[in-house]
Parts: sequence; structure tokens; C-alpha cells
Amino acid sequence: MFFASDNTSGVPDAILAALGRANDGFSMGYGADALMDQVRARIRTLFEAPEAEVFLVATGTAANSLAIATQVQPWSAIYCHRHAHIEEDECNAPEFYAGGAKLTLLEGIDAKIDADAFEAAIDAAPGGVHHAQPGILSLTNLTERGARYSVAEIARLAGIAHAHGLPVHLDGARFANALVAEGCTPAEMTWRAGIDVLSFGGTKNGLMGVEAVVLFDPARGGTNRAWEFELRRKRGGHLFSKHRYLSAQMDAYLTDDLWLSLARTANARAARLETGLRACGARLVHARGGNMMFAEFPLKGHAALRQAGAMYYDWPAPPPHGAGPDHAHQCRLVTSWSTTEAQVDQFVDTLKGAL
Amino acid sequence: MFFASDNTSGVPDAILAALGRANDGFSMGYGADALMDQVRARIRTLFEAPEAEVFLVATGTAANSLAIATQVQPWSAIYCHRHAHIEEDECNAPEFYAGGAKLTLLEGIDAKIDADAFEAAIDAAPGGVHHAQPGILSLTNLTERGARYSVAEIARLAGIAHAHGLPVHLDGARFANALVAEGCTPAEMTWRAGIDVLSFGGTKNGLMGVEAVVLFDPARGGTNRAWEFELRRKRGGHLFSKHRYLSAQMDAYLTDDLWLSLARTANARAARLETGLRACGARLVHARGGNMMFAEFPLKGHAALRQAGAMYYDWPAPPPHGAGPDHAHQCRLVTSWSTTEAQVDQFVDTLKGAL
Amino acid sequence: MFFASDNTSGVPDAILAALGRANDGFSMGYGADALMDQVRARIRTLFEAPEAEVFLVATGTAANSLAIATQVQPWSAIYCHRHAHIEEDECNAPEFYAGGAKLTLLEGIDAKIDADAFEAAIDAAPGGVHHAQPGILSLTNLTERGARYSVAEIARLAGIAHAHGLPVHLDGARFANALVAEGCTPAEMTWRAGIDVLSFGGTKNGLMGVEAVVLFDPARGGTNRAWEFELRRKRGGHLFSKHRYLSAQMDAYLTDDLWLSLARTANARAARLETGLRACGARLVHARGGNMMFAEFPLKGHAALRQAGAMYYDWPAPPPHGAGPDHAHQCRLVTSWSTTEAQVDQFVDTLKGAL
Amino acid sequence: MFFASDNTSGVPDAILAALGRANDGFSMGYGADALMDQVRARIRTLFEAPEAEVFLVATGTAANSLAIATQVQPWSAIYCHRHAHIEEDECNAPEFYAGGAKLTLLEGIDAKIDADAFEAAIDAAPGGVHHAQPGILSLTNLTERGARYSVAEIARLAGIAHAHGLPVHLDGARFANALVAEGCTPAEMTWRAGIDVLSFGGTKNGLMGVEAVVLFDPARGGTNRAWEFELRRKRGGHLFSKHRYLSAQMDAYLTDDLWLSLARTANARAARLETGLRACGARLVHARGGNMMFAEFPLKGHAALRQAGAMYYDWPAPPPHGAGPDHAHQCRLVTSWSTTEAQVDQFVDTLKGAL
Repeated sequence: MFFASDNTSGVPDAILAALGRANDGFSMGYGADALMDQVRARIRTLFEAPEAEVFLVATGTAANSLAIATQVQPWSAIYCHRHAHIEEDECNAPEFYAGGAKLTLLEGIDAKIDADAFEAAIDAAPGGVHHAQPGILSLTNLTERGARYSVAEIARLAGIAHAHGLPVHLDGARFANALVAEGCTPAEMTWRAGIDVLSFGGTKNGLMGVEAVVLFDPARGGTNRAWEFELRRKRGGHLFSKHRYLSAQMDAYLTDDLWLSLARTANARAARLETGLRACGARLVHARGGNMMFAEFPLKGHAALRQAGAMYYDWPAPPPHGAGPDHAHQCRLVTSWSTTEAQVDQFVDTLKGAL
Repeated sequence: MFFASDNTSGVPDAILAALGRANDGFSMGYGADALMDQVRARIRTLFEAPEAEVFLVATGTAANSLAIATQVQPWSAIYCHRHAHIEEDECNAPEFYAGGAKLTLLEGIDAKIDADAFEAAIDAAPGGVHHAQPGILSLTNLTERGARYSVAEIARLAGIAHAHGLPVHLDGARFANALVAEGCTPAEMTWRAGIDVLSFGGTKNGLMGVEAVVLFDPARGGTNRAWEFELRRKRGGHLFSKHRYLSAQMDAYLTDDLWLSLARTANARAARLETGLRACGARLVHARGGNMMFAEFPLKGHAALRQAGAMYYDWPAPPPHGAGPDHAHQCRLVTSWSTTEAQVDQFVDTLKGAL
Repeated sequence: MFFASDNTSGVPDAILAALGRANDGFSMGYGADALMDQVRARIRTLFEAPEAEVFLVATGTAANSLAIATQVQPWSAIYCHRHAHIEEDECNAPEFYAGGAKLTLLEGIDAKIDADAFEAAIDAAPGGVHHAQPGILSLTNLTERGARYSVAEIARLAGIAHAHGLPVHLDGARFANALVAEGCTPAEMTWRAGIDVLSFGGTKNGLMGVEAVVLFDPARGGTNRAWEFELRRKRGGHLFSKHRYLSAQMDAYLTDDLWLSLARTANARAARLETGLRACGARLVHARGGNMMFAEFPLKGHAALRQAGAMYYDWPAPPPHGAGPDHAHQCRLVTSWSTTEAQVDQFVDTLKGAL
Repeated sequence: MFFASDNTSGVPDAILAALGRANDGFSMGYGADALMDQVRARIRTLFEAPEAEVFLVATGTAANSLAIATQVQPWSAIYCHRHAHIEEDECNAPEFYAGGAKLTLLEGIDAKIDADAFEAAIDAAPGGVHHAQPGILSLTNLTERGARYSVAEIARLAGIAHAHGLPVHLDGARFANALVAEGCTPAEMTWRAGIDVLSFGGTKNGLMGVEAVVLFDPARGGTNRAWEFELRRKRGGHLFSKHRYLSAQMDAYLTDDLWLSLARTANARAARLETGLRACGARLVHARGGNMMFAEFPLKGHAALRQAGAMYYDWPAPPPHGAGPDHAHQCRLVTSWSTTEAQVDQFVDTLKGAL
């Protein structure tokens, strides 16, 4: 019963098989492998974006930090939600890559940026030489609280950003989960809604450690941001010599809609889990947008689950000292492509038995 | 006939198999996997260094940059050879990670630092507030010109560094090749000779993209450099969520001396190639220390090899315009664990036929 | 009627005279001037801190950024008020000097950090490798809204910081104004209350551009932070070759309590202004702690003042379009050592006449 | 007998007087003072560059670092002489401001870059993603060894840089001394010869601490580098609130050719010193281009001078242990606007008496 994170799961056999195939013979390194050409073509087709530039890195933090750094300056403000991954879980990597830029935090329920709050913040930015200069808006979909921006919500936020001359980044560590839940196309959730640069996650959805950065407008502002990205990636130590092993994974991920099918499975398990939790009387703290939920139920339920070996995080904090068995306590639960119905049912049954 | 680089080769079956085994079930991420405990124990035993701290990253540039940054300050001078990888091939990554530190370049034949030159340089460092402060000595073994430092040479250089209060880093991207050629133990080539921090390469010797950083003295100067390394790694985007896939590779690499046997094969192929080249009248530009050599022979030989499909780099530069078939031209040739005797022989026979 | 900022005022004759005296003959540069020895001794005596290290720079942003950078790491969180100068008015300089550290913003009325909010924030800091590590607490006295921390309030906040292992910085751009209003000694407002490093402002209180950084505990954590400060200052381009002109100003500033008398004058003018404003029915938005206040009164009052040539800033924003003459509008008013009673009275009389 | 540096001298009375005049009344800060408008106009006229943008800072290190950072990227190579001030005397400030860019060192006698060496270096730059990208050429005139580039030499070097798409920076800490010695116009030594950005020194030639940065082509590459400079200056803590005191000094410096007359005096004293030294049999190590020279004469001469109170630096190093009175030893000697003929004569006479 592993519900700690989607990154505790392994990879599907198709990914292992792709690594095996890619292993034959010699291959030029550093992204000059033939598989990368194929990946680039696939992503351009998938996103209906023939001009897009595509790069692979191995971690989400690298993808986000490099994607953002390529769009801003060291004196920029990076607008994001108070609970964005780039704010809370990347140990100042965005600041590092962006040369000391500042994350300016916005509020909003379910870790979704409130559009009015964003507009008010950017309208209030004083602009003069003493202040951080508005630089970019960074969204996360699914959010860090498991909710989902609709296409319309993304478009509204991106519209505000663009009206103020700012590009928009989407942290899509769980892009696939958001996409299949929203039921739209990749283009609709990204550039058609105003996204300029995307961290297209693979790791949480079944790869060993591969994320694509997609620059939808690589010449924005008259600058060669694609080449800048390449230099920043190398300078960050994120350019793989044996790049084919990243390409092979991403290629297999995109073949025969594997990535969508993995996300659908994860979301379906989450839906089953939500249904079960609600049937037990648990409360969902945030609107569930895909494969992650935050639930509240009595401590005695948690005790029974821990006892039965369930793995998941207390969230946002451990229970207070001396809390009794009926204390309502919150946790985070994440499903993945490899979560089984049996695991979900065991979890729910254990909880049901305890309450 | 792939002699362009050892990173154009694939990985042995044992590595693929290890990935398959590691793929079973759920596993906690970010280095908390059980396989990492095993890797740590193996490296400590291998290096006879029970106090050493061990971390995995995916690229050599990350390993070097993080290893060095953990030892120096932004106002430091990093002493290295003019042809060190950190100077020539990492796009200012060491400067980036070390907050703007300065690489101070030293001379020496075969890309080995001349000890007298180093001593003279560090003795001449003025020390006051206006100047970069001597920070670290970084060696590379094998060097970027394919030569090898002996244990005694390392010890002499490290002795000078230590006498001036400086730690010593070893870029061991080809550590295995140097080690088996030198015929010493890992401890002898590292901490016993004065190395404080090692980039222990795996990628060039048969992994997909795994390097270990080994801190032999993680509390040097009273600072918790191990924890600092962890924070720097995360902040650099180099901490893998699905860390088990790095651990699994390194674990297999160290099992049953696989890593040594891979390096022995690469070196043996290089020796065979050197013998063949010399028999053709080619000149070796630098002393060969392991699996890489720089050879000079007439352009007509190069033409025949290119015609036959041989892949390798002109080095340091393409032939001048208008150079005739007898023009002596230099190139770099690298063998790997997957280079076959047949490939070597085909290369030599092609060259022999052309000269 | 200049109430825009205390930095729009000039310097007293004593400062000009000191520059003239310092100009005689040759003097070794870079802080090795004899006047600097005298400044150091004066500040140690004044603060009853014989071990303190003292350095001069020319701007408040340099003082704050260097002071903080010397205490933290690039992966640190710097706790400060949402309206701190380091957050709002230094164009990411603290992030630049601290290598990409993060400013973590706290709430509190009158721009004074709420101690409970600080304690809650630091208690909630998760601590693991994914997150910014708590690094320092930075206070500002007077605050950016003109209020004043009492010695007890500083001590409470510093106590929380210290209990969590954090040092405490005080941005004292208006330290003199706070001190004379509080009626305590320099030691009481700083190290005795738990301040570890102080930006001791001179510019806003009558110097051309001189601030001292005082390290009360230059060996905190076993590190030579004084030497680190010197290197950081030089590397930031803030070490003056003709340092004597900084020393001379600071020396004269501290002679015969000139600095205290300047601050007393500025505060007295502010008190007179407050009295006059209140008599006109204006509202003070924040508690006035020294020489700066934020007042709200009808737009027709502002119109008359602007018409009469009064200089000051709308704060936090210009009046909304179409606001009528009775619209209550806020502004910032700052007095300095050179503000005269006549200027204050003219301001008040003008306002009175308009309302 | 102060020959240690031109920055050990004071400032002329005209500068003090200008400070006194500027001190009257209130003045808007941060460069919005009326005197700065005048300075800008003066410099544009002086350099025949009506489009140039002009900014003031207080130190040469700030001027150089900000000037260069505005032209390059963190992954750039900054070409300069091995003995450039930015390499040897700024404690990694250029690397800091340029986000970790790399200084690539060139050779050449008298600290003048050899044009062929520069061309060879830049032609050999490999260009790919693994390497620092050529970013800028930085010259120094007078050089750090006291020599002078002719206008033709500057033009040749700048021509090579421009042919490779690189801008050119001139560190003009001793620009005035070079200019009056060369006998050309400011335009001829700068933009007409290919200089894109100039650090126009004032401090070493009679100001307290004022340097101008002049951007001759502030829109180079379609970027608003003037605004970028302003943001970088603020972010570096180099924007003065009471900016009028910088403006006033620079304004007086440029009035009635004061700056040229100060430099002529310094150079004349240096010429007198050179003549005297040669008459004593001393050897000049480098060609003297202005107000600085490096002389070699027996240790007994040094002993007598030290005994008589002469201040100057051994250069490049103190005499070896045990060197006898006839050992030929080198030193650096710098004159300034305030050096008197009597001081020079006393120096020469003392030396003459000892040899």
C-alpha cells in the first residue's frame, strides 16, 4: 500500500524494453542521437507545435529551473503560488539557476493561483530600478495540492501575464494526469492557453528520470532561447553524454499513447480511492484533480493503516502530541500507474475497519 | 569503428539486468533506497574508507562541479591544468556551482600538472583581500590527453596543496582505466595519496549516466560537507526522485569487479590499437595512460579511415585548408569496454593499407 | 518643503570639514588609513563591544546584502517582514550577494514582524534537503512604515531566532532615529537584545554615503566572518581605495554625539509635523517611531501642498482616477536633520488652509 | 615620498569646493539630481557621443564588473591580459557580477595583449555547447604594467573582436594619463577605435571615489543595456541615494579640463622620475606609458629609500632571502597629480646617493 508519492513507483516494462533496444551499438552523445530526433518530432506533432524546441533533462527541478531561467533575468520576480513546487520543494534551485531572482508568492485555494490576486500583485509592482522586475508567471498543473486548473483558468492567468509582457511557464510534473482528467489536447492545455514554456513530466508517470522542456516560442523577444537553454543545461551539468537513454525512455513513453494510458490508470485508482474514502466518512481537503488527494479522517484510522503497512505522508504536519484516536488528521495520498485496485481496496477496507 | 569517445558505447548486460531487478515494487526516493545503502557500503570497503560519504549523480560535470563547490568559496582560485575537463569542457559549470570562483590554469606535459609550476603559482599567490584566495587543487586521472598520473605524482602534488592548506579533488571520469593501468588499489590512488574528494566515474566505463562523489574527509575544516553536498546537489537539480536506478547501476558496476574488468578490456583494446598504430608509423602525441590516445599520421590515412566509416575526432583542430595527403595530422582515439579486437584490427588494417 | 526622504538632505558642515581635514597628504588605501582605526575604536566603545569588527561601505543596500551574505548560505531562507527594505527596495541585491538565497516573508503591523508569526513559520520549516534551510532573521528599526521595535520586542524576536540556531541582522538605516526615540544605549538595542550583525546607517542621518557594518560576533560558528566580510566586500566592488573619505565622515559623525543630535533634530521635526497633522484632522496610518510617518488626509489637502511645492511620495499608490477632493489619500512624510521648523510649519499651515 | 599608488593621494581643492556647493538644500536621489544631467551632457560632448549613456559608481571594480556584466552571459569567456586588473586585483568580482563567467587570459609584453595571440585564441575557441562562449574583449589603458596602447593598437584588437562578434571594454582607471600621453581625443581612444563600453576613471586621477561607465552603444544587440546597467548597479548596491556627491565631483573634474591637467601633472612627474632613475643607472622593466613605472636597481638603493621614508611596492615580489646589497631588485613607482617635483627629486637624490 504505497501512497507516499508517484515517484516511489517503478517503470513499465515497455520502458525497460526501450532501454534494452537503445543499448545496441555506438551512438553519438549529448543529444545528437537519432532517437532524440524522433522524440522531438513526436512532441512537436503531439503538441501541434512544429516550431517548438524540445530538450530532455533527468529531474523535475532541473526542468523547472532551466525553463524559468531561460525566460527571466537575475533581477526578475517569478510569480508563483505560495505552495508551488519551485517555492517549497526545490531548495532554492530556481533562484540558483536564475542568478538570484526572487519568487513572489501568490495566494489561491487548492494551490491554484487566484487570478485577481495575480492581477492585483502585478498591477501593484512599482517598476522602478529599486524593485524586482516582473519576470514570469509559473503555474503548476496538477497543483501541489492535487487540484487541476481548467484550460479556461490557465488561459485567464496567462492572459493577465501576457497583457503585462510576461511569459508563462507550466510545471507539468503531473501534466499527463491533469490532461486526461481535463479531457483536452496537449495544445489546448499549453500554448493555445498561453503557455510559453512547459516542463513536461515523465518521471512521476512511469519513467526512471526523464522530463522534457518544451519551448513553444523559442525566439521570444528576439533572443535565441533554444541555444541559451542548451548552454544553461550544459552549464548546470544536465546534458547527458549517453543521452540516448533519456531519448529512448521518452520515445517509448510517447509511443502508442503509453503516457496517457499510464495517467489514466493512476487517475482511475485515485478516483476509486476517493470513493472509498468518502464512503468511510473521510473528508477531502482539496478538490481532487487527478491522482493525488489530501484526506482527513480520525487518527485511529491512520493508526490502523500504518499498522497494516500503508505508506503515505502526514500533511502538512504530524499529529499534535497527545491527540486522541478521534482527532481528525490530514494526510496526502498519491496513486500511480502501478497502483493496483487491490491496493486501493485494501487501504479502504483497513480504514473502514478502524472507523 | 567508433573511437570518438568512450561515452558513445552502451552498457553491459549486467547493468540492464540490474535495472530490471531494481524495478520491482515501490521504493522510497531521493537516495533513501536500500540499494544506496549497499552502494555506500561497497565504496567504503573498496576504498578502505569507512568514514567516507558517498553520493550519486548522473553526469561528470555535476560530479566535478558539486565536489569542488563543496570545498571552496566564491572568491577562491581553483588550480587545474590548462586542459582540464573542468576548464575546457564544462561550459563554466564549475564557476556556476562555486558562485563565480576562478579557475587558475597550470601547465604541464600530457595535461599533467607540473608540480614545480603548481608550487611556484601557489607560492606567488599574494593572499591579500584584492586577490582570489587559493581554494583547491583539481587533478584529472586519466588526464584529458590520455596520460596517467602515477600514485607518486599524485602524492607530490597533493602534498604541495596540503602544505598550503588546500584540499585536493580528483576528476576520475576515467578513474578505472587509470587504476588498472597503474596497478594499485583505489585507496592508494586516492586518500592515501592525499585526495580529499573524488569524482568516481561510471558513465565512460559502462554505465548509462552514474557518477559517485566520494568525500574522504566529510568534516574537513569542522564543516558538515556531506550535508552541504546534499543541499548543493538538490539545489542543482541533481537529486533523483527515483534514485534506485542510479543505485542499481552503481551496485552492479561494483559487483564481482565488473568495473575493473570493463576498464581492463578498454585498456587492452587501446594497447592493441597503439601497437598497431606504431607499426603503421604513426606517432603518439602523448604518453598513453589507459584507454585514450592522440595519434599523428598522414592525412591520406585519415581519409581512408573516414571512408571506411571510422568515427573519431580531429584533435586539436581540423586539418588546415589545402593540406596534402602526406600532411601529418593529429586525432584523438578512445576505446571502451565494448570496443572489439576486430574493430581495432579493422582500424589498423585500414590505416596500414592507406599509408 | 522636502519630505520625500531623509536621503534628499545634504550633510552638516562638520562632515564637510572632516573631509577637508582628511584630504591632507597621502594615505594608504583600502581601509588601512589611520582614521579607520579611530572609527573602529569609537564604534567598539560606543557599542560596548570590544570584540566587534567594523567595516564601512557606501550604501545601505551594500551594507545589508554583505552583512546577511556573510551569515547565510545560498540555500538559506532569510526571514524578514513583507515590507522590509531588503525585500521591496533592493532589486534582488540580497539574493545576489547570498548566492540565490530566498527571502521568506513574515507579516506584522506597522512593518514589525509578528513574533508569533515568526515562531510559527520557523517551527513549520520542514528542514529536509528539499527545502530552503532557515538561515537568518533580519529586522529593520525604524521599520519601513516608520514604526519602532522596542528593545523588548527585538529581544523576543532574537530569542526565537537564537533558539532555532539563527543569527539576527538589524537593518539600521534609521538606527539613530530609533535609538534616540527609544532612549536606550546602542548596546541595549543591538547585541544585548540579541543582534549579531548591524547595518549602522549614516547616510540617511547626515552623511554623503557611509554605512558601517558591525559584526558583534565575528567568529560565530567557528568561522572567520570578519575576513569573509572583507573578501565579500572587495568582491562586491565595495572596498574603497581612498577609504579615508569614508572613515573621515564616520569619525566626524561619531564625534561629540553629532549622530545623536542629528537624529534628535529629525525626530523633533517629525513630532512637530505629527502634531500639526493631527490638528488638521489627518490620520496617521502607522505608529510613528521616529522621523517618518504615513498620513491620510483629503486630496484637496494634497493638492494645496503640491501646489505650494511640497515634495513627498504618495504611499502606497497614487490616488485612484476620478477621486474627488474629499477622498482620503495616504502619503509618506520623512524629516531629516536639515528639516527646519519653518518648513514643518509651512507644510502644516498649507494643509490647514486647504481643509 | 609616496609612490605606492595614485590612490594614496587626496583630491584637489576644486573637488572639495564642488562638494561644498552641491551640499546646499535638498536634492532628489538615485541619479535624478540636476548635476547628473550636466555630467551626462559633458561626457557626451567630450566623447563626441551624443547617444552614449553615462552612469556613475564609486569604485573601479564596480565600474569594470558592471560594465562587463552588461555585455556578456554567465557562460561567456572574457578575454583579457594575464595581468589585467580584473584578473589579478578584483577578488573574482567580474566573475561574481557576470554570474560565473570565465576570464580567459592572454599574453603580451608590458601587459598589453598581443593581437596575434588574441586572434589565435578566439579562432581556436571551439564554439560548441561544452565550452565557454567568446563574450567580450577587455583592454586596460594604461596597462597594469604602466604601458600604453596606442590608438592603432586598440583599433587592431577591437577590430579582431568585432570581426568575431565581440564587444570591447576598456578599463580606463588611468584613462586620463593614457590620453594626455597619447595626445589624442577621447573619441579617438574609445569608440572611434572600437571601444563599446568604457570604465572612465576618476579616483586615481584626483576624485574621492567616482568612476563613470560610458556605454557608447547602449542598444547593442537590440537590448536595452542602459536599463540593464541601471538594474545591475542597483542590485550590486552601487546606486547612491545621495548621488549628487558623485555628480558634483565628476562635474568639477570635467570643468575647465581639470582632469587633463591633473593627468598631465602626474605624467610629468613620472617623466622626471624616469629621467632621474635612468641617470642613476636604474633599468625600467616596462615601457612607461604615463604615470607608472617599474624600475630595477640594487637593493642598497632600496634600503636607502626605505630608510628615507619612501613608500612604494616591491614588485612583483619582495627580495629573496639573503640577497646582497648589489642584488638587482624591482619595484613599482606611481606618481599622481599631487606628487611634487621636490618629492621626485628627493627620491632620485636619495637613490643616487646610495648607488
